[in-house]
Amino acid sequence: MAAQTRPVLALDIGGTKLAVGVVTGDGITFGYRVEPTRREEGPDAIIARLLRMGHEAIEQAGLGPIAAVGISSGGPLDAQRGIILGPLNLPEWTYVPITDIVTVEFGVPAVLENDATAAMLGEFRYGAARNADIALYLTLSTGVGGGAIVHGALHRGAAGNGGEFGHLMVRPGGRRCTCGRLGCLEGYASGTSIAVRAREAVSAAHAPSVLDALETIRAEDVVGAVLVGDEVATDIWNETTAIVGQAVTDLVNLFEPEVIVLGGGVTHAGDLLLDPVLRAVARDAMPPAAAAVRIEFAALGDAVCVVGAAARAFDYVDETQETTNA
Amino acid sequence: MAAQTRPVLALDIGGTKLAVGVVTGDGITFGYRVEPTRREEGPDAIIARLLRMGHEAIEQAGLGPIAAVGISSGGPLDAQRGIILGPLNLPEWTYVPITDIVTVEFGVPAVLENDATAAMLGEFRYGAARNADIALYLTLSTGVGGGAIVHGALHRGAAGNGGEFGHLMVRPGGRRCTCGRLGCLEGYASGTSIAVRAREAVSAAHAPSVLDALETIRAEDVVGAVLVGDEVATDIWNETTAIVGQAVTDLVNLFEPEVIVLGGGVTHAGDLLLDPVLRAVARDAMPPAAAAVRIEFAALGDAVCVVGAAARAFDYVDETQETTNA
Repeated sequence: MAAQTRPVLALDIGGTKLAVGVVTGDGITFGYRVEPTRREEGPDAIIARLLRMGHEAIEQAGLGPIAAVGISSGGPLDAQRGIILGPLNLPEWTYVPITDIVTVEFGVPAVLENDATAAMLGEFRYGAARNADIALYLTLSTGVGGGAIVHGALHRGAAGNGGEFGHLMVRPGGRRCTCGRLGCLEGYASGTSIAVRAREAVSAAHAPSVLDALETIRAEDVVGAVLVGDEVATDIWNETTAIVGQAVTDLVNLFEPEVIVLGGGVTHAGDLLLDPVLRAVARDAMPPAAAAVRIEFAALGDAVCVVGAAARAFDYVDETQETTNA
Repeated sequence: MAAQTRPVLALDIGGTKLAVGVVTGDGITFGYRVEPTRREEGPDAIIARLLRMGHEAIEQAGLGPIAAVGISSGGPLDAQRGIILGPLNLPEWTYVPITDIVTVEFGVPAVLENDATAAMLGEFRYGAARNADIALYLTLSTGVGGGAIVHGALHRGAAGNGGEFGHLMVRPGGRRCTCGRLGCLEGYASGTSIAVRAREAVSAAHAPSVLDALETIRAEDVVGAVLVGDEVATDIWNETTAIVGQAVTDLVNLFEPEVIVLGGGVTHAGDLLLDPVLRAVARDAMPPAAAAVRIEFAALGDAVCVVGAAARAFDYVDETQETTNA
């Protein structure tokens, strides 16, 4: 691996927020900035803002020219060709050649990676999964996704999308998922789903709830209501953590990893999420697998996809140089 | 890898049958023999029979001295130390130092492997998963187990048991599994569970069934009854294939493999099993993952664990020679 001297720019395109930063080879982020995605604006306007944020980050970081750009986005996407192919959380983004757009704009190579795969890489290189031989990343965000390290390398899968952890079946015949099936993990554990289920529960509830007064309910409102003992919110939250605990137990049994890193906005719930998940795994997973696994929140916090996209860009520069030198 | 000239002996200890053969480096089995396990006889008597079968296989094969012995058994076990640690399907086998016993008996090194891991290795080296970069093996047998190849190598997991595919949650709150949880795959898809559920259905059914006349019902009797249009058996079978289809879909989504190999006695049902599973994956898995995967029966058939244990023994001899030469 060639030593990196120049930093890279990293762009994270999420269903809820855009995040951008300049990252150095030791994983430190400079000029970090976040804006709401405002998906109703459509791809052209959002990409224009993203590029503007990239220029601002480079200027604010003050580290000189960048070597490459790493981009992370929800799938499905074609990482190899750098094309976003209609993420479920970004309607209208049906065929966006994002690496070409970014390369033209910044005059350096650009590389695209699934956001959860990028996050896995970030935590593997710089965070909670450092030096792990087998690690999983589970993001509970606008959607639910995942990534895996096996034998110390990214597990990309036969079609390049890696692990689609959001579409693990958790409640057969249950709620309709964005993928069309009934009962996937994403239909219960995403921030979006927690908010929707809370709204339904408030409408149906006979008991009063602190959520009654809110015009729109977000996942963080549900967590806040749990903290003040709200019964309606607590029911929704208990269902959520039971299902996340069941899914994490499945991941422990199927992959037998050393570490599972939990990331995404829903993890802001902290111990309200982690404690029941740890209890479920200790109680329900195969004992040797349960004993061998650590379960932790992303060490890189909300910047995990930015740092992960940067890690991918560094790898890309290294691969390209190796090819050039060979 | 050193070239192998001498064959190896392979011993497969199953909950229902013992299988033994002498296997050459190109994966051909000689002197193959199978006997019922008769688990009620207990470990000492069973092991004595297994060793006797081994000697008979060596004699019948007529290939001269063996280089090593590969042993496959249901888990939990300690592959590293060669100790069987109380498989759920072999009560009384609480701590059996099987590699020591076998080494003393045959005077050559012996190595132990989880049976589903061995089967995965056999199919990877000689069968349906040859040259795959990512492959899974799912056995539907006395129990349900699994193995995985990732990045072209066996995935052993952080605790060495690899994938415990039998304990994927498929019906939350459902039937009690041998592991104690409610609703695992093994509680529906093992031959044992198919037989038990059929017996229950016959007792509860208001309609007559061809199974009524049988004193004991086995999984193959259920399949036979389905083939003659028996309604009670068809209900049990449809539930089974729906659950196996759901589980295989989960495996496709989580691992995104190139191939999933199905093995074990339940696969004798042939297209009655494979067709609904293929339909479920095509309908329910993430489309790119569904398009990238092949789903096939074990090419090595019922000898898959014997050939897999032999493949493990060949690897072991190679590793030992490399260490000696280093």
